[in-house]
Amino acid sequence: MDLVMVGLGRMGANMAERLVRGGHRVVGSDPGKEALSRAAEKGIEPAESLAAAVEALPSPRIVWLMVPAGELVDTLLDELKSLLSADDIVIDGGNSMYKDTVRRAQTLRASGLHYVDVGTSGGVWGLAEGYSMMVGGETAIVDSLTPLFEALAPAADKGWGHVGPSGAGHFTKMVHNGIEYGMMQAYAEGFAIMEKKAEFDLDLHQVAEVWRHGSVVRSWLLDLTANALDKNPALAGIAPYVSDSGEGRWTISEAIELDVSAPVITLSLLERLRSREKDSYGDKLLAAMRNEFGGHAIKSS
Amino acid sequence: MDLVMVGLGRMGANMAERLVRGGHRVVGSDPGKEALSRAAEKGIEPAESLAAAVEALPSPRIVWLMVPAGELVDTLLDELKSLLSADDIVIDGGNSMYKDTVRRAQTLRASGLHYVDVGTSGGVWGLAEGYSMMVGGETAIVDSLTPLFEALAPAADKGWGHVGPSGAGHFTKMVHNGIEYGMMQAYAEGFAIMEKKAEFDLDLHQVAEVWRHGSVVRSWLLDLTANALDKNPALAGIAPYVSDSGEGRWTISEAIELDVSAPVITLSLLERLRSREKDSYGDKLLAAMRNEFGGHAIKSS
Amino acid sequence: MDLVMVGLGRMGANMAERLVRGGHRVVGSDPGKEALSRAAEKGIEPAESLAAAVEALPSPRIVWLMVPAGELVDTLLDELKSLLSADDIVIDGGNSMYKDTVRRAQTLRASGLHYVDVGTSGGVWGLAEGYSMMVGGETAIVDSLTPLFEALAPAADKGWGHVGPSGAGHFTKMVHNGIEYGMMQAYAEGFAIMEKKAEFDLDLHQVAEVWRHGSVVRSWLLDLTANALDKNPALAGIAPYVSDSGEGRWTISEAIELDVSAPVITLSLLERLRSREKDSYGDKLLAAMRNEFGGHAIKSS
Amino acid sequence: MDLVMVGLGRMGANMAERLVRGGHRVVGSDPGKEALSRAAEKGIEPAESLAAAVEALPSPRIVWLMVPAGELVDTLLDELKSLLSADDIVIDGGNSMYKDTVRRAQTLRASGLHYVDVGTSGGVWGLAEGYSMMVGGETAIVDSLTPLFEALAPAADKGWGHVGPSGAGHFTKMVHNGIEYGMMQAYAEGFAIMEKKAEFDLDLHQVAEVWRHGSVVRSWLLDLTANALDKNPALAGIAPYVSDSGEGRWTISEAIELDVSAPVITLSLLERLRSREKDSYGDKLLAAMRNEFGGHAIKSS
Repeated sequence: MDLVMVGLGRMGANMAERLVRGGHRVVGSDPGKEALSRAAEKGIEPAESLAAAVEALPSPRIVWLMVPAGELVDTLLDELKSLLSADDIVIDGGNSMYKDTVRRAQTLRASGLHYVDVGTSGGVWGLAEGYSMMVGGETAIVDSLTPLFEALAPAADKGWGHVGPSGAGHFTKMVHNGIEYGMMQAYAEGFAIMEKKAEFDLDLHQVAEVWRHGSVVRSWLLDLTANALDKNPALAGIAPYVSDSGEGRWTISEAIELDVSAPVITLSLLERLRSREKDSYGDKLLAAMRNEFGGHAIKSS
Repeated sequence: MDLVMVGLGRMGANMAERLVRGGHRVVGSDPGKEALSRAAEKGIEPAESLAAAVEALPSPRIVWLMVPAGELVDTLLDELKSLLSADDIVIDGGNSMYKDTVRRAQTLRASGLHYVDVGTSGGVWGLAEGYSMMVGGETAIVDSLTPLFEALAPAADKGWGHVGPSGAGHFTKMVHNGIEYGMMQAYAEGFAIMEKKAEFDLDLHQVAEVWRHGSVVRSWLLDLTANALDKNPALAGIAPYVSDSGEGRWTISEAIELDVSAPVITLSLLERLRSREKDSYGDKLLAAMRNEFGGHAIKSS
Repeated sequence: MDLVMVGLGRMGANMAERLVRGGHRVVGSDPGKEALSRAAEKGIEPAESLAAAVEALPSPRIVWLMVPAGELVDTLLDELKSLLSADDIVIDGGNSMYKDTVRRAQTLRASGLHYVDVGTSGGVWGLAEGYSMMVGGETAIVDSLTPLFEALAPAADKGWGHVGPSGAGHFTKMVHNGIEYGMMQAYAEGFAIMEKKAEFDLDLHQVAEVWRHGSVVRSWLLDLTANALDKNPALAGIAPYVSDSGEGRWTISEAIELDVSAPVITLSLLERLRSREKDSYGDKLLAAMRNEFGGHAIKSS
Repeated sequence: MDLVMVGLGRMGANMAERLVRGGHRVVGSDPGKEALSRAAEKGIEPAESLAAAVEALPSPRIVWLMVPAGELVDTLLDELKSLLSADDIVIDGGNSMYKDTVRRAQTLRASGLHYVDVGTSGGVWGLAEGYSMMVGGETAIVDSLTPLFEALAPAADKGWGHVGPSGAGHFTKMVHNGIEYGMMQAYAEGFAIMEKKAEFDLDLHQVAEVWRHGSVVRSWLLDLTANALDKNPALAGIAPYVSDSGEGRWTISEAIELDVSAPVITLSLLERLRSREKDSYGDKLLAAMRNEFGGHAIKSS
């Protein structure tokens, strides 16, 4: 199939390359000259502009957005509305908030366009191992894109699925990331407990390797953890500072909206916030309170 | 009544003083010369040794221990067993683990002695305002000590009670402290949220003062919080480092043993542990994992 | 002073009554005939309509809204915009989301009106004991309303304060309620642990009474807890079902937005959600997973 | 090699069978006649008694215990002390508390015996897929047992390791199970959120299948979850009742002892406790408190 890939950052470039390897024709659009020329080396056709990229495709055109969630998506959709014609398809493969996706799908439908959301997991390993994709949108449209999903997935019939109407793909991906936070935190806590147990002087890389085979906690995240511990078992030089990119927050907010108690996913996010608090006012206040009622000594900062 | 107060630290000295003010005769025992002479100024009779202190009392003798929980209590009980006679009474007013209290009561009973546990709350304010006391032990013995409790409590008939058999006093005090952790953490979080909300530039001391009168969250801990914020609204110079002294841990352990889910008390303790982790291995591992799967940048330490 | 009280439900009627007792003239507006006639018995002048109520006041007019947060406030503000004139004052004493308040204040200012937000705590006890009020808005306007706040507060100079610009009052009240959730949950957990400890057979009402005097956990919420346990120590006939009315959710959402980790306030809300889950899908899935990997028996529902 | 397997329940019988398949000679000991005869069909030699089993082995004898953690282990060790001779080896492959293991190893060493702890993961799938084993004990002894571990593991050089001195194997397995709790809870929460999102009408089995290939959350537990959802997507007939078998509690207790905050593992256990609370006193008290201060309606039980 022919498609435009908009956004040739880490994710977009890799996905475009995997599509090219799968026999598809990918026209690439990106504001960065360097990204375009790197993409060209992988067989992706560089386009000078979004308009030029769209121009290069036969109808119905397929435009795959792989850009950071947020306003940029709306800006691009506005531009695409003027460039595309009825029955063209826009795919959002990024981590958009699913409520934005539901809204955007309605807007595009009003312009005769089709909108498909593809929650995409796999990270930097997706190029080699294939991506897991949760697809939302109209059935006929999603069906027509099957060859693309088959090329991107780990296997033609594995790792992707049409999970529901517009928004369902991004919703499912959001929850996926919430679970990811919880699993990561579970491992992090377990390894931290073992690291602190000086008397056993455990080799944490060895433990991770043992667990990778036959244990109940084996997983791909554990494989990666073993990699990380192999390279740097003491995690030297790494700041205990953990970022978050939004999906965890949305998952928590959604859970509360649905009246579902999700303490582990929630605490996983809070731990990340906590990792970034350098000088907690709350903890200072606790120390001050203890001093007030019990005369307990305060540590000076 | 006549009694020996063993341990003339902050709590013991204040309680002895309040008993003296209440018309009781208190013989003080403490290894520290200075503590003894300070106590003497308050009308507490200094004794040169535990033996001398016990000697100074009429039978049946009452010995009140106000020392740190742990081995020291067992050591003192061993010594007291040889100094005391049948029907003498030993009171443990400290924060002993209630299971130790149950065990010690059995041991003392075998020696013909009576053991009473008094979970004591009130901190440095108890001297002026009176102590809240949860008393465990045999009914007749506890009844015989009523004048002491009436003198120590905020009012003769308020703030103390015989709550159950040996151990019940310390058990109740343990849970009291668990609740205290939860309440403190709730305030700390709320004030931290307000402190971070720069756009409203709230005066946190003012907010605490407003809440002290008429609000649902008014409490003595809030009064103290207002004090602390009055003296030092920015909590300048105070390290975000929060100690814990055991009862919180025991409450959590007990809750789990009883199959009661107590998430708030539990998280309150974990937050204190967290306040003392300077360089969390778990957080470093999370950062390393994110880098492995998503190529997300690691912050250097 | 003269004012209109819009909304004569439990909170509005009590506040109007306290204002009347304080020597103020209150015109009452409410769609319910019964509420109006009950109010009339307390010295509140019933008005047939909002228009009539507003008509009855001298300029500048003061209209105090005491209605459920949400769309109703916007509807009333729309109506008031046509009834009021420049320099009139509208007060929102309900639990509006502070972001709505900021927005509404801007809209009203564009119409020459003043908007004041009064976060109000005190519940059904406020009539007798006075209300705690956190006030947001323009300084001159808030100052002009001082006599009203002095009448409503527990004492003229206690329990109320102008905490910041528009929205700051509702923001502060929101956090107040978050703290309230945490404190309530801390008590609930502590009493649940004691209730489960069959061997000590504790009298929980007695324990609450003991703690009310001299202990670190004494508070107004504990006073109420003692009341409840006095009337019904076994809490017989009460379903373990805990509602929430929004401010807890907003506090959590705000904390996350501000990157402040507030685990105790957060878990307090989650526990309420949990109390309402009758047939947790998550717990069923855990049971199913345990069966899959370990052959552990599943309990039938 | 020749060894005795004591305990032919689900785990012991399967491990014995895998050892037999690996070319080892296994004498089986179990109080159950049926377990013995089932074992005999798999090539395990049934012994009439522990003494007879031990008798059947050449020196140095190897006795592998695969029994529930707790007193039974101590009882068996007492019996074995009289049956075994210097340099014989006892292996505890169950989920014993690591502190018990440290103690037992010291006791056995005093009798000239060697003690090896093998934390074993793999559940009912271990027979087919191999077990993950974390081994603690003296290096020379563990080395001498290598052929057994190679036969039990998924591959000779994968899924097992000598992680440290006596106790280190059980310690590592304990933490493994803590992580397992956290991961399971993360999945359970995520699927519960999706299940509640009626508007997308997600096919949860399909989602699990999609995630199994290429996603960040792929894992063996997810494979099992997909199995469970395939058989029973609505989880019909399954009670939301989740048991726990001790290691989670120990992990939490250990984390607190080490001053490591492990909120996710901790909350995972609390959620299990919560799943078993039918009539939470704490939640009733919250409802009663809300009624006291706000007049909020109580739901009748």
